Amino acid sequence: MAKTAGMSVLLPQISQAEQFFPNQQTFTVQQVMDLILKTRPGAPFPKTVDTLKSGSPSQNVTGIVSSMFATTEVIEKAAAAGANFIIVHEPTFYNHADETDWLKNDPVFQRKHELLTKHGIAVWRFHDYWHSHRPDGIYAGILQALNWSNYAEADNPRLLTLPAPVPLSQLITHAKDKLGIKQVRVVGDTSQTCKRVLLMVGASGGKSHITAIEKTKPDVILCGEASEWETPEYVRDARQQGQKLSLVVLGHIMSEAAGMEWLVSWLQPKVAGIKVSYIPSGNPFTYV
Amino acid sequence: MAKTAGMSVLLPQISQAEQFFPNQQTFTVQQVMDLILKTRPGAPFPKTVDTLKSGSPSQNVTGIVSSMFATTEVIEKAAAAGANFIIVHEPTFYNHADETDWLKNDPVFQRKHELLTKHGIAVWRFHDYWHSHRPDGIYAGILQALNWSNYAEADNPRLLTLPAPVPLSQLITHAKDKLGIKQVRVVGDTSQTCKRVLLMVGASGGKSHITAIEKTKPDVILCGEASEWETPEYVRDARQQGQKLSLVVLGHIMSEAAGMEWLVSWLQPKVAGIKVSYIPSGNPFTYV
Repeated sequence: MAKTAGMSVLLPQISQAEQFFPNQQTFTVQQVMDLILKTRPGAPFPKTVDTLKSGSPSQNVTGIVSSMFATTEVIEKAAAAGANFIIVHEPTFYNHADETDWLKNDPVFQRKHELLTKHGIAVWRFHDYWHSHRPDGIYAGILQALNWSNYAEADNPRLLTLPAPVPLSQLITHAKDKLGIKQVRVVGDTSQTCKRVLLMVGASGGKSHITAIEKTKPDVILCGEASEWETPEYVRDARQQGQKLSLVVLGHIMSEAAGMEWLVSWLQPKVAGIKVSYIPSGNPFTYV
Repeated sequence: MAKTAGMSVLLPQISQAEQFFPNQQTFTVQQVMDLILKTRPGAPFPKTVDTLKSGSPSQNVTGIVSSMFATTEVIEKAAAAGANFIIVHEPTFYNHADETDWLKNDPVFQRKHELLTKHGIAVWRFHDYWHSHRPDGIYAGILQALNWSNYAEADNPRLLTLPAPVPLSQLITHAKDKLGIKQVRVVGDTSQTCKRVLLMVGASGGKSHITAIEKTKPDVILCGEASEWETPEYVRDARQQGQKLSLVVLGHIMSEAAGMEWLVSWLQPKVAGIKVSYIPSGNPFTYV
């Protein structure tokens, strides 16, 4: 259990138990993935999108960057910072499974691939494993950012009971402020009061949203992204039938980004010799 | 080819050739669906979402309503207008295939089902057949609403060449004004000029958008709806690589609604004895 002087200076508040390789200062991409997977019961999952999208498992890691997306800008910033391993929550090549056969002759794909190769950057998706973490790493980060960690049910971080009812407009202002959201889309009445909040980040799908609404009977559902013909139409019908239920579409990226920022504090102690940093991909939309 | 005096008064500009049942004043739901399917080569399609969601094929039609969605409000307005057949472009029960097994105990589904039953309303989805019409009925309507019919390629209504380059901001103002859109989301630069426009209404998916961008090399793609990890990220990467390409997300409903309004002028002459009208479902979102 010996600590090196250097490490205790770098990480004064980290216990030895959290250091998987206490004396290790260098890691390969595979070793970083392995030490993360060791924390996940049942890993590696037989079916998962969490695969290496670029780079080699055997390359030595010079620095780790966490982000929602490995955008062209995030790749360039990582390279400039001397990091060659980007851990992302979302796809790199514009489809959930990161299939690239159909993109082989696409100039945007080709240039992105060239950029990754030029800088020798590995990209690993960390989606299924991070959501399967207990607590779910994305929810842990977003609840912390919202200062709502104490309001979540112990066994269901998506269901929150606020200490007192607040107008939906106030809830929206809080979420926009804490999560850095420029604008949300609402189906509902912003003067409605809310106490029971269903928070479903990302794009979990209409069936998942609606089933959760049935079970938890919230005043409002805050989701990341929703197809227009699914949850928004369900909520519109519910309201036209007289039900008190609103929907707030936060935007997919900004609904989960705090969870990738939170990854830094979780991962850094496990790879003490490597700098782990968060580079926000940001939200590409403007609203006109 | 005899015309009754009454019909020529009702429909002075409609040729007999357009009247499938020139002497017929009453129709069942099945007969209306049949006369529409007669216009589609290959119909009925072996696999289609265009099925009857409510009501009976044998019921007599008292009036036809066209809309994007059979919302609770659209159902009530149709019933109040004495119409018992709603033709919609999108699902009635919050999922593409209108599967209802999972919704059996859902109160919103139950009340909507009860409302349809109470008013004896048939709902038929007219999505695949309308898009397969030549011209695509949705594009015909939206191009007319935009006054862009003359700018579309003869064999591809999605590809438009404007008579002169215009700033994207001007293009957006035009689209919002003509289609009744409150707000759009943009990945790009609104001061960019555009001449070559790729218009892809609805939610045709990232692969479809990206493949079309590769083929047609537009200045801007206007789409209905897009998953954040697909087309928006592709366009963001393209722009960060220096490509002049913008994306405008119009919203799914308002990108197609004009095509369901256009259906009225197409269908009315075929069912001269029945009133066909358009009831907008509108866009449920507010922007905060």
